[in-house]
Order: sequence, then structure tokens, then C-alpha cells
Amino acid sequence: MPVDFTLQCPVPLPSDERIVLAHGGGGRLTQRLIETIFLPAFGNPALHERHDGAALNVNGQRLAFSTDSYVVRPLIFPGGTIGDLAVNGTVNDLAMCGARPLYLSAAFILEEGLPMETLRAVVESMRLAAERAGVTLVTGDTKVVDKGKGDGIFITTSGIGAVEHTFTGPVGIQPGDAVIVSGPLGDHGITILSVREGLEFDAPLASDTRPLWEPVDRMFRAGIDVHCLRDLTRGGLSSALNELAQTRGISIQIDESRIPVREAVRGACEFLGLDPLYVANEGKFVVFVPAGQADGVLELLPEAALIGSTGPSFDPVVTMRSRIGGTRVVDVLSGEQLPRIC
Amino acid sequence: MPVDFTLQCPVPLPSDERIVLAHGGGGRLTQRLIETIFLPAFGNPALHERHDGAALNVNGQRLAFSTDSYVVRPLIFPGGTIGDLAVNGTVNDLAMCGARPLYLSAAFILEEGLPMETLRAVVESMRLAAERAGVTLVTGDTKVVDKGKGDGIFITTSGIGAVEHTFTGPVGIQPGDAVIVSGPLGDHGITILSVREGLEFDAPLASDTRPLWEPVDRMFRAGIDVHCLRDLTRGGLSSALNELAQTRGISIQIDESRIPVREAVRGACEFLGLDPLYVANEGKFVVFVPAGQADGVLELLPEAALIGSTGPSFDPVVTMRSRIGGTRVVDVLSGEQLPRIC
Repeated sequence: MPVDFTLQCPVPLPSDERIVLAHGGGGRLTQRLIETIFLPAFGNPALHERHDGAALNVNGQRLAFSTDSYVVRPLIFPGGTIGDLAVNGTVNDLAMCGARPLYLSAAFILEEGLPMETLRAVVESMRLAAERAGVTLVTGDTKVVDKGKGDGIFITTSGIGAVEHTFTGPVGIQPGDAVIVSGPLGDHGITILSVREGLEFDAPLASDTRPLWEPVDRMFRAGIDVHCLRDLTRGGLSSALNELAQTRGISIQIDESRIPVREAVRGACEFLGLDPLYVANEGKFVVFVPAGQADGVLELLPEAALIGSTGPSFDPVVTMRSRIGGTRVVDVLSGEQLPRIC
Repeated sequence: MPVDFTLQCPVPLPSDERIVLAHGGGGRLTQRLIETIFLPAFGNPALHERHDGAALNVNGQRLAFSTDSYVVRPLIFPGGTIGDLAVNGTVNDLAMCGARPLYLSAAFILEEGLPMETLRAVVESMRLAAERAGVTLVTGDTKVVDKGKGDGIFITTSGIGAVEHTFTGPVGIQPGDAVIVSGPLGDHGITILSVREGLEFDAPLASDTRPLWEPVDRMFRAGIDVHCLRDLTRGGLSSALNELAQTRGISIQIDESRIPVREAVRGACEFLGLDPLYVANEGKFVVFVPAGQADGVLELLPEAALIGSTGPSFDPVVTMRSRIGGTRVVDVLSGEQLPRIC
């Protein structure tokens, strides 16, 4: 659905403004960058949808097309590497369009001095991730930048998928829809942060990076009337829900006690002063379905949880009932909670 | 055509090897990186062709898919910016597959502190380049890295095209084929180097960045029996000819006096000690056609020049007759002549 960005951002950016880390955080400043720089230049129906990928028509064939750059630090972490993050991330953007992921490209920007063994390990993890996701890496590129002008490895993947399931997206969200997350939140972000800060917890943490086409396909094949799908990467659940609430123009209510978070992640979040609602995931999505089909989804996705519902108000606000019974607004992140998380 | 890389690189890379700038130069070290790291992991027919893009079949629709990262310094230079380089480069990779460029993705890796005005100028040049090339930018991504971990702007574009003209590629090159370049060589590389070194010449230099689908389409529509097409980017004419000679297993002879080079570029090359055969272009290609059709191509492409022919030997060597009558081997560049040229 086209977004009227002139209403959302009536004033131009000041001319002396500079890029800050939060412009890449997936929150308010990323939105502002898109609205003031990218949409005015490239505005077209596909881009205005601001989905995870674009739905295209090539001679009658319906395709999905998506791209993402990966700049995560460190390059290798518990549960994954920048390489399988780059494969799964693009695979999942296609899955969120109802498209079976088919082909990937991979472009590498390497920093002079990178040990060849690190590159080899990352490439091997990409091979395994592509195999698991059933995609073929068909084309690529390598550039090298001077030492101190990059950071080891940056990877950009793009993907082409065949749209097998058509659904409405944000515009199809109805009042009373069930809001379901596909599994526990925060694993990826908290794992990265713990490694970076040298923290150790009793229970081991690992990134949840994984391909999501299979569970998405399973829902559609079971006849679930999916109204909207969105993966929970940068900015976490809060960003996804706020974006959808605004795009659709509807309220969303969630229940804190229903939001699944692993004990180890909850403990780490408390220790670090982070809210799991804002932490990035790399293998989780939120799905909106008619209330009567919620049980069906929970049966199909063993780790999933019903966390709330939409409407009745058309005020685009996300609210959460806390464990102690109060209600608060879940706002979109304006700054950057965890830079370079993916 | 699959390349037997085990023959070309019998010894594995030493385990303490590190990435150097020349791994991104498009010459021998880039080939070695592809052969020892990427092909063994991702080997599949599309990737083994090692073309500018991959030809794919999606439900009977023939598509081309290509990706490239751009890391050029400076970001803005006479004749272009990193932005139109990123649009035209991917557009041209698709054109080299006989595919009409349709859709592009663009992923930005921005360095913290980048002036917003620079980003705006680059994005505006991308808008104009996309308009000129007739492609629609449909999806994108933005990441930000800490100051000192990037270099202003890196852009990765990927493209999807519809294959309109089918031809054999390197395997279709025949003994006696005419070898034609589409215009004067070296403009882009020499322009970048001159700006970087603060050199000024009498005649102004400018990058040749431009979209190539239109002249390619013109040749096919005129009935030219194109045997092979290749654009002359990183590594210049010498890398392209050597790669094709090796892939096809055929000799190529070119004539120095026939190679078109603008006076200003020739002068700059002499001054800088560079050989225009090795300098990158961003809007030129080499085409192999039956000798009898060479005149037809020269009529269709006003700036083109017939520079040599293939065979009769099947020894994969490129030789050049110099202006003073001697003959020398034109080898592939082993090091890096001009880092970060694109």
C-alpha cells in the first residue's frame, strides 16, 4: 500500500545532517531516511509497499525479489556466521512475500588483510545454509577495500523467489485478527551482544538464524487464511508491529505474559537493561490470521504463541498489557539499541 | 562452460594467506579466489559459466540475474558517481547476457558521519541512471557501520532481466571471428586515477559509465550473429580477452594500431606509465562475430573498431602486433593496477 510520506515527514532534512548509526537500526531514523531520500528518488508502487521484498511480474510470471546487506560484528558467533545470516535473511524476506526462494546472488566486500581462513569458514557456512534452505547461489562478486576502510567482511545477498501463495499483506489485516509470533524472541540480538561484551550466562545462548519458507509454506498449505506476515529482524517485534499498525491504520494489543522469551534471553535482557520486544531475531516472524484460525496455526508451528489481537480502534497504536496489569504504548525505537546486529 | 579449476590451480592456498587488494582487481588473484574458495563451495552450472550474470529458468521464463558491489573512490568524479556506476554496471551485466534489464535492487552500506548531502547526490544520480537505462529500482536496504569501518558509501546492486536474445557465449567463438570493441578504451579508469592523484590534463577526461542494452539490442535486431559478448570493466580488455581465450581454448590476435584510445587518455597513460589495455571501462564491450558481419557491426556502432580476430591456433593465448611491427603476448594482470576503480 503506498505510504503518503509527505504527511509523515513534512520538513526536509537539514542540509548539514550526517549519517549516524541509528539510520541503520531499522527504527525511526531508518524510516526517515527512506522517506526523505530513497522514496522521493525511486518512488514506484513496488518500493512504496515497503515490504521485505518486491513482488514483480515478468511476462506473466509472479516473482519476489529482495536484497539485504550484512555488516554484523563479530563475523562468527554462537549459532551462526555473517554467511548464513546473509543466506537466511534474504531467503526469509522472500518467504515473507509468500515466495519459494529459488536463486541467490552474493556480493562480498572484503577488507585487505582478512585471513583467508575466515573467508573460507564464512563461505562454507553459506554453502550449508543455502543447501538447508533449498536455494542455489548462481552469481556473485568480490571487491576488496584498503585496510581500515572496511571491517573484515560485508556481504550483500539478493534473492529471487517464485510467488506460490498470494495474500493481501498489511492492507488485509482485519479488526479482531489473532497476532501470533512463530517462536521465542531475542535470541539473535542477545547472543551477538553477549559475545561482543564478553558476557557469559549459565544457559548457553545461540542465534536463531534459520530459513522460514518451510513453516510459512506449511501454514498456507493447511489452508490458513494468512492476512499478513512479517519477519522480526532489526528493531524486533516492536518495529514490525508499529510499522504494520501505521500502514494498515489499526490498533494492536499484545499481552506481555504471552510473549515467548527463553529464560537465558530474559535473564540477559534484565542484566543488560534491554527489552526483548526491541531485540533483533533472525528466524522468527509475526503472522496475522482470523481469530478462529489461531489454534490451527499454533498446532502447525510448535514454538508459536498467540500474543494479542488487532482493533477494534483504527488508531495506529501498539499497546501492551504488562504482567502486573497496566497498559503501555509500545513505541518504535527512535535511536539504535544494538548497532550492527545483522 | 564449466571450467576445470583443479587443472588451473593444483595447489591449495596456504592457510596463512590473507586478502590483498589485488584479490579484488579482476586479474589472476581474483580468478584464484573464485577457483579456490567460491567455486568449490557453490559450484553449480550457472556459477561455473563465470559469466557477468546467471541465466535462469523460472517456470519456463528465461531470466538473467546479476550482482555487483561498488567501492569506488572518490564517490563523485567527472562523468559520474558511485551511484550511476552501480546502476549501469548491473544493467550492463544483464545486457551482456542478451537480457533486457527490468528491475534493480540497491543495498547501501553507509559510514557513520557521511554528509546527508553526499548521499542525496548519489541517490539522485542513481535515479537519473535508472531512468536512462529503463529499469525500475524496486527494493533496497540500508546499513550503517561505525566511523572508520567503511568508506562513505558502498553500494551493491542486483538486477533481473528478461533474456530476449539467446547466443552461445564463449563456447560459440569460432576461428576467424572478428573481434570488435564498442568504443575507445580507458576513459573510466584514467579519469578516476587522475582525480585521485590530482592530475590535470589539457583535454578533459570523463568516465564512460553508460547503459549498454540499447547498442546490444540493436546488433541482435539487425540480425548480427553474435558469438560472444563481454563488458570491459575491471582488468580491462586484456582480462576479458584472456578469460575468453582460456574458456574457449582459442588464440586471439589483436592489432595495437587499431585499438581506439582517446588522445587525452593515451597521453595520461603515457604520463602515468599505464597500458590502456589493462584499464577499466564502464561503458564498453567486446563482441565476437563472423568476419563477414564485422562491417555490419561497425555501421551499427559508430564508435566501434575492429581490433583483431580469433584462431587459427587453439592455444589459448592473446597476442598483439605492436605499432612497430613486433608481436607480444598480452598477459592477464597478476597484481592490481588501479584499486577501487569501481
